[in-house]
Amino acid sequence: MPEIKTVRIQESLLAANDDRAAALRERWRKSRTLAVNLLSSPGSGKTSLLEHTLPCLAERARVLVIEGDVETDNDAERIRRVGVEARQITTGGACHLDARMVERAWDESASAARYDYVFVENVGNLVCPASYDLGEHRRVVLLSVPEGEDKPAKYPRAFRDADLLLVTKIDLLPYLDFRVEKARHYALDVQPDLEILATSTRTGQGLDEWVAWLERARSAEYGPG
Amino acid sequence: MPEIKTVRIQESLLAANDDRAAALRERWRKSRTLAVNLLSSPGSGKTSLLEHTLPCLAERARVLVIEGDVETDNDAERIRRVGVEARQITTGGACHLDARMVERAWDESASAARYDYVFVENVGNLVCPASYDLGEHRRVVLLSVPEGEDKPAKYPRAFRDADLLLVTKIDLLPYLDFRVEKARHYALDVQPDLEILATSTRTGQGLDEWVAWLERARSAEYGPG
Repeated sequence: MPEIKTVRIQESLLAANDDRAAALRERWRKSRTLAVNLLSSPGSGKTSLLEHTLPCLAERARVLVIEGDVETDNDAERIRRVGVEARQITTGGACHLDARMVERAWDESASAARYDYVFVENVGNLVCPASYDLGEHRRVVLLSVPEGEDKPAKYPRAFRDADLLLVTKIDLLPYLDFRVEKARHYALDVQPDLEILATSTRTGQGLDEWVAWLERARSAEYGPG
Repeated sequence: MPEIKTVRIQESLLAANDDRAAALRERWRKSRTLAVNLLSSPGSGKTSLLEHTLPCLAERARVLVIEGDVETDNDAERIRRVGVEARQITTGGACHLDARMVERAWDESASAARYDYVFVENVGNLVCPASYDLGEHRRVVLLSVPEGEDKPAKYPRAFRDADLLLVTKIDLLPYLDFRVEKARHYALDVQPDLEILATSTRTGQGLDEWVAWLERARSAEYGPG
């Protein structure tokens, strides 16, 4: 029964990942670091969001970005170009990050510095990353307007464990049949407590609210300052 | 060494899938059915492409669509609404179709009818589906303009084994920093023999060329008629 054996190995790998993620979360608690895991399809605008908002956040806090991709270090380069520290993980085929990869990248950076925020940009994928806890305190899922409103119904797991949904690229609303209300309905159907923000890195809409959301999340974990 | 064991089981599952895919391809050869496997990110426009072009193809050929999704049968419903026969596979969490799922869906349909074309719309995902042969004769990958030009570099496997790249949603080019030439460059870097068509289901651009490409592909496999 090769299928049953595979499922069991998968479960035991997930359990080992959960343990490591819990240990990482505890380390972050001690250093008062808020960890945010960003999930979305390829090309939904995760890197663009970070490029447009982290320079502002980094004026008043210490920020690290850990980038996950199957191949290339393009995204870490983009983050560094806006003056924010970044580490690249290339998974070499794997469709998600796991807690061990993140821990290794964290160890390489955190030996030299302390951070108030660590952003983990997962591999662009709405399926696999959803099953892997990376030790984050907040999970954020992006849905870009061109992808269509129904993605929460079709990929429920990615939305079910999220704290915040960012509807991105809303500058494209005039050119597409996308209704934010309908996307909201699909998303709340999967996760009734989901907070939702509509954003555009082109027009700047919603970006201040996103930074404020991050600051509130860090205060909620560690108190002000 | 749980990692090595997992890799070996993965390899043996892939080998079993390859065998089943080869058998399926042979069955399709006997029935003179051209099988096309469509891959892309979520929301790149796979279903929209089929909705806009299969009714035309179905006027002169027998067409079946097999839809793959993690959840919901929305996509099969959409295809049926334009008058084309469709079967839905829901993978219930798996990030890709495999040859066995497709074979089962095929058996349910092909006992009652004969088809000239079978289109398999894979789960929206640029990583996992790339490793699974579904017995197809042609693999088609879609890249929508809002996703950005660099996806072939970041998800090379999905593009490496493809025969055709469809750059979709080109009606959005005026509103985005996407250069088709740059995407072409990235894609040909990964797969120098890739054919490339630029399409839009909104304006109709490239759709006739896509249907002609399909008809040429079927002729190349089985001769005219």
